[in-house]
Amino acid sequence: MAIPSALLNDLAAFLGPRLSTSAGERALHAQSESYIIAGAPDAVVYPHTTEEVARIAALCAREAVPITPWGAGTSLEGHALAVKGGVTVDFRDMNRVLAVYPEDMLCVVQPGVTREELNGWLRDTGLFFPVDPGANASLGGMASTRASGTTAVRYGTMRDNVLGLEVVLAGGRVIRTGSSAPKSSAGYDLTALFVGAEGTLGLITELTLRLHGQPEAVSAATCAFPNMGAAVDCVIATIQTGLPMARIEFLDPETVAACNAYSGTSLPLAPQLMVEFHGSPHGVAEQAERFGAIAADFGSRGFVWARAQEDRSRLWKMRHDAYRAILASRPGATALVTDVCVPISALAQAVEETREDIAQSGIPGPILGHVGDGNFHAILLVNPADPREKDLAKALATRMAERSLALGGTISGEHGVGMGKLPLMAAEHGPAWAIMGHIKRALDPHDLMNPGKMVPQPKVR
Amino acid sequence: MAIPSALLNDLAAFLGPRLSTSAGERALHAQSESYIIAGAPDAVVYPHTTEEVARIAALCAREAVPITPWGAGTSLEGHALAVKGGVTVDFRDMNRVLAVYPEDMLCVVQPGVTREELNGWLRDTGLFFPVDPGANASLGGMASTRASGTTAVRYGTMRDNVLGLEVVLAGGRVIRTGSSAPKSSAGYDLTALFVGAEGTLGLITELTLRLHGQPEAVSAATCAFPNMGAAVDCVIATIQTGLPMARIEFLDPETVAACNAYSGTSLPLAPQLMVEFHGSPHGVAEQAERFGAIAADFGSRGFVWARAQEDRSRLWKMRHDAYRAILASRPGATALVTDVCVPISALAQAVEETREDIAQSGIPGPILGHVGDGNFHAILLVNPADPREKDLAKALATRMAERSLALGGTISGEHGVGMGKLPLMAAEHGPAWAIMGHIKRALDPHDLMNPGKMVPQPKVR
Repeated sequence: MAIPSALLNDLAAFLGPRLSTSAGERALHAQSESYIIAGAPDAVVYPHTTEEVARIAALCAREAVPITPWGAGTSLEGHALAVKGGVTVDFRDMNRVLAVYPEDMLCVVQPGVTREELNGWLRDTGLFFPVDPGANASLGGMASTRASGTTAVRYGTMRDNVLGLEVVLAGGRVIRTGSSAPKSSAGYDLTALFVGAEGTLGLITELTLRLHGQPEAVSAATCAFPNMGAAVDCVIATIQTGLPMARIEFLDPETVAACNAYSGTSLPLAPQLMVEFHGSPHGVAEQAERFGAIAADFGSRGFVWARAQEDRSRLWKMRHDAYRAILASRPGATALVTDVCVPISALAQAVEETREDIAQSGIPGPILGHVGDGNFHAILLVNPADPREKDLAKALATRMAERSLALGGTISGEHGVGMGKLPLMAAEHGPAWAIMGHIKRALDPHDLMNPGKMVPQPKVR
Repeated sequence: MAIPSALLNDLAAFLGPRLSTSAGERALHAQSESYIIAGAPDAVVYPHTTEEVARIAALCAREAVPITPWGAGTSLEGHALAVKGGVTVDFRDMNRVLAVYPEDMLCVVQPGVTREELNGWLRDTGLFFPVDPGANASLGGMASTRASGTTAVRYGTMRDNVLGLEVVLAGGRVIRTGSSAPKSSAGYDLTALFVGAEGTLGLITELTLRLHGQPEAVSAATCAFPNMGAAVDCVIATIQTGLPMARIEFLDPETVAACNAYSGTSLPLAPQLMVEFHGSPHGVAEQAERFGAIAADFGSRGFVWARAQEDRSRLWKMRHDAYRAILASRPGATALVTDVCVPISALAQAVEETREDIAQSGIPGPILGHVGDGNFHAILLVNPADPREKDLAKALATRMAERSLALGGTISGEHGVGMGKLPLMAAEHGPAWAIMGHIKRALDPHDLMNPGKMVPQPKVR
């Protein structure tokens, strides 16, 4: 679409140079860390305040122009691509930590603050924000996609760590959800509704987040297993005994090989668990001992402890670099990153069947995951010049999602829906998907907020 | 309203004697553990299956007759009272535990199962369901009111422990929300929307619940403090150090006196904390020691440990009997139970100001609460023959809620909205309350599901 010039004039009147229609700015907001390609927005704006966001929403509503929010551009399913054009609202400049309340273990931030910026800010308070999706995503984006990552098994996902929001709705109304109390039973849980809504119900302009105490002691380890089933059974037994694991990650042998080559480590080429414990010095020692005993019961070997901060940093840097390591294992390849989550009892089966399926396809696809949550990813490495490989990878990803549903799981553990998972929503939700559409229309009747996403779309003739 | 005879005939055709219009059955469903009085339903039904609930909803929609769900009748704000008449759906007979999945730490239950029944069923599995509101409420009711209680500080509320639902919507459509995976980012969080919706968006007919491992070791204690502020500061310090308290309850001296008289205990007449630790034997011992040191820093005295199961049972029975103990402290009185939740940093101020306000009113009002969550209750004891006392108590309750809002808190920590808190919803939510109304109309356009509750009501001339 072309934006009416009256709208551009009215936006420029208060945004000045923070409104751009340059080809370069628009192109920057048409790409993401994703294989998905979509059109560019017609304009990009950089608001500084909630009031500016509300004015942008009101003006766009007047002209029936779509609005798409943009955080750090790290999402993996094309969430922030302006598939219907219009105005992309980039929250880059709304990046202030507004308040930290140590006694209440809360903070209030603008949506453009990234998780690393927040944790840098918190370093001397004794508190931290635990949700860690790997990428240095913006907190607004993490809330919008209901992100999680390596620490969710202990600290939960964004669902559990967002206590309240300020949201600009379609048309420019501003609401606040939640409170600063640790819990509430006063009405519909609007906070939970906007967390994971991917901007389709409104734009998040402020977040109240739960913080956690920096652990007094931390200990981490890698631990090789004879096979995938043994590693998963060890995870199940560990969680059932109530051991409060801070992290429990799985790497398959292909991932281990890629990490060794990329990070200079020398882990045995076997299924590996990477675990971390948080607590008091005694508590961590006891947890580690108990985990070691459970792991031994399941045939673990090659246990490597990382008690010193620098050893742990090296270990988790290796884990966070796994995506780059896997990409580097096939030079020139692009990645299709899959993301499913199943009940833990079905995890070994889901991973084994996925490995077989990948092996038969001939496409490289190392597997790693947050196994404490039943969540895993295959990084499918595709030659971008070969459309057949891309089709094969998409078919593999679809079969992974279908397999997850057949096992009682979900099509998306933590990467959200975006454009990539939209075709699978009906299969997961059945008649409940239409209810999501009813809610969307109730809050955004003219379909202006990140349109083309999340809910059933009108048929195009 | 009177129910059309065609509807009664069609309901009786498949419910037989499980449809009742007797004065006795109707009167039983017009009372609750609440000071709130409302009319009776016109009929009561006792479905056995989701299909029957769906048929009831479809038939009631055909005749535009309201439907109100009924669990165990233990709610405190009149949630289940059929204020517009119609059909009350009593889930008494939908009381089966449908499945337990120990490896996934999940179970699937019908809504009429009570929490004590579920934990009885689970006893030999090594697992338990932790949410404990005191009353032996039904799990459908607990989900609908977003209940919590003494263990929320460790295990969360119903928000955190319901993973999926089956819901019958207005008109009789059946949807399923959530999955059996531990987390998901696939779409709007409908599970969270129905949890706490108090039946105004649909009737819960099945719940998938998270279970937790029965702790290997448990230790509990009571601990007296020189004043309220010291007790609360001790709580803040304890939580900030990351000590994983399983319970941390506050009793004011008036509550302690009532409990001593009722339960034959002899706790010192001072502000008391009741704490409980769950974990490994070593872990619990360490936690207890660390808590003891923190408590001593804040002037605690009169520490009494309850390490043996029978001592702990006696202690928590005393706590769970506190409501009855307080009632018994003023023979003939009825109780108005208040429920607010504030940021922990504001807790001492909120409780102190509430105590002063109650003292000035002349009405007895012992205070107790789940202080780890910032949640507390005053049990206002009113002579039912004295309308002035009832008015005084209502005014006290309103001021408590307003004080909570002024301190960043909520009007309802865990008792929900029902009829009692409806007049305060606008003050808490501002413009967001209208959005709840939009959602209600999107899912229940003819206002048939527990009408007269939760959302802004049409003005009556």
